[in-house]
Amino acid sequence: MPQLRRDPIIGRWVIISTERAKRPIEWGRKESTSQISPEYCPFCPGNEKYAPHEIFAIGKPGRQLDTPGWEVRVVPNKFPALVVEGDLNKRGIGLYDMMNGIGAHEVIIETPDHFLRMSQMTHDHIKKILIAYKERLADLKKDIRFKYIMIFKNYGEEAGASLSHSHSQLIALPVVPKRVNEEMTGAKRYYEYRDRCIYCDIIAQELHSRERVIIDERNFIVVAPFASCSPFETWIIPKRHCSDFLKITDDELNSLSVVLGKILKKIDICLMNPSFNYIIHTSSFNNLENPYYHWHIEIMPKLTKIAGFEWGTGFYINPTPPEEAAEYLKGVD
Amino acid sequence: MPQLRRDPIIGRWVIISTERAKRPIEWGRKESTSQISPEYCPFCPGNEKYAPHEIFAIGKPGRQLDTPGWEVRVVPNKFPALVVEGDLNKRGIGLYDMMNGIGAHEVIIETPDHFLRMSQMTHDHIKKILIAYKERLADLKKDIRFKYIMIFKNYGEEAGASLSHSHSQLIALPVVPKRVNEEMTGAKRYYEYRDRCIYCDIIAQELHSRERVIIDERNFIVVAPFASCSPFETWIIPKRHCSDFLKITDDELNSLSVVLGKILKKIDICLMNPSFNYIIHTSSFNNLENPYYHWHIEIMPKLTKIAGFEWGTGFYINPTPPEEAAEYLKGVD
Repeated sequence: MPQLRRDPIIGRWVIISTERAKRPIEWGRKESTSQISPEYCPFCPGNEKYAPHEIFAIGKPGRQLDTPGWEVRVVPNKFPALVVEGDLNKRGIGLYDMMNGIGAHEVIIETPDHFLRMSQMTHDHIKKILIAYKERLADLKKDIRFKYIMIFKNYGEEAGASLSHSHSQLIALPVVPKRVNEEMTGAKRYYEYRDRCIYCDIIAQELHSRERVIIDERNFIVVAPFASCSPFETWIIPKRHCSDFLKITDDELNSLSVVLGKILKKIDICLMNPSFNYIIHTSSFNNLENPYYHWHIEIMPKLTKIAGFEWGTGFYINPTPPEEAAEYLKGVD
Repeated sequence: MPQLRRDPIIGRWVIISTERAKRPIEWGRKESTSQISPEYCPFCPGNEKYAPHEIFAIGKPGRQLDTPGWEVRVVPNKFPALVVEGDLNKRGIGLYDMMNGIGAHEVIIETPDHFLRMSQMTHDHIKKILIAYKERLADLKKDIRFKYIMIFKNYGEEAGASLSHSHSQLIALPVVPKRVNEEMTGAKRYYEYRDRCIYCDIIAQELHSRERVIIDERNFIVVAPFASCSPFETWIIPKRHCSDFLKITDDELNSLSVVLGKILKKIDICLMNPSFNYIIHTSSFNNLENPYYHWHIEIMPKLTKIAGFEWGTGFYINPTPPEEAAEYLKGVD
């Protein structure tokens, strides 16, 4: 069973995933499972048997589980970082804290088409992916062992994707990740001081200056954040204050499908199909609805290598000013 | 002039380095300056003219500046992330905070031999590198604009090294990096509660359990930390409580040269010459000598890709339990 261990100094939780253990000799080998052909791809229609049993799908009415005919499909991760069965058994070893690695780790297969990138999908199709996110979130939230659910996408080998077939992932966690805590604490501090949501203030300031706004849509803005830590970092922020992604309205969901498709297409054209990650940032379950936090999506193209300096300091060097990145991204469609 | 910008939510500082700006089209190109030959290498003896003027060197007595005959040599970074000249001009733009990118960015050329890795150097030679670190630290500390100095090494392309000739880097910063603040705050909190240094307690617990100890030397222990966030992460911790790296004794410096050489050799053999980063973690200047923080070196072999999940959560998945990593590293010499 995997373990969750807490760094005693900075409080960061780490999953020590024994199920994935590699011997040192294996680290030398370059894996390119990314380049697997559709014939053997566990995410392609007809190969449903190569993946674990499906949890959720959007597809033809009356279609049978684990058969073709789906448009978006959710399955457990075959090599999960956390396992669903068991209890947490929180414990200490001397000054160290740990618990069992209980959680859910699911894969959202975004399309039956092995070669289609998200940047090439229709808005209608992207909406179905977002609906799958919502459905799984709403379902897993009921499990009282979980404190946070992270939805993210790794696209391309440089961004950590191990299969090229378009997919996102979901991890339900029994602890709130450090970064989420930091964001919520930072936003709360600002709220206590000014009685306003910091993200709402950022939206107002960005719409006023326009320097870093890439897309200004009815329900969302897309900006290159002022203190971007990597080149072409991009945030999608809903204009309406809302701390919980699950509370997105149907109108906003339509807008988000359009806006997400648009910005990914811009990034794809501008940076020539780069690897990227995106993450949905939303409130932790212990404080879902609040006036200070504001859900949003952060997109990070993977263009630079994270070096020792960045890793050890949390202090990033970004060679591209966000104003320039915004200018470039605005210019392509 | 580069800028320092502060993330308004989580408080992280970012260097926006306009001097290094690349157009989007350039991101597509794979650079391999790493593989430059000694003939053109700016760090090789005889090519001193290709690098900025030297700041410090250890070499033959009576040798002239910027000429061969050195064993370790320090020069300014040719493409510095921060610049030395100017004042900080701290300012706000609406809710954002920024200042000029004032700082020092230097390169410690560790050897005249283009092909020699640190893991292959003698202990005597490694000691000279450590002396160069100390000398530069002591000198830059006098500049009252600087609040922290980070010394780190990126080895190999995967770890962000742009030249293969063995070198380390030093960045002097006008702000304390977030991660350093977190470590110092975490250590202080523990101290307030228990009246003991957490690192001293870790040393005691690790020496008692032995599960994660790789090297137990007179003055230092080398351990795979309990909550390692990446495979084969390794910390070198001095046994004597000391918050400031500059206060290392000569006896400890000898020990550190031996221990650093040994662990790098173990990592080199065990993981077949992997890319890695190391960083010296020491107190910030505003609180150099204190009973709660404990300087140390963190070494991170670069074996896994940092994916979206890790980036967005500060929550790492480590496939190799540190107990196993310690076992492997103990077994090779």
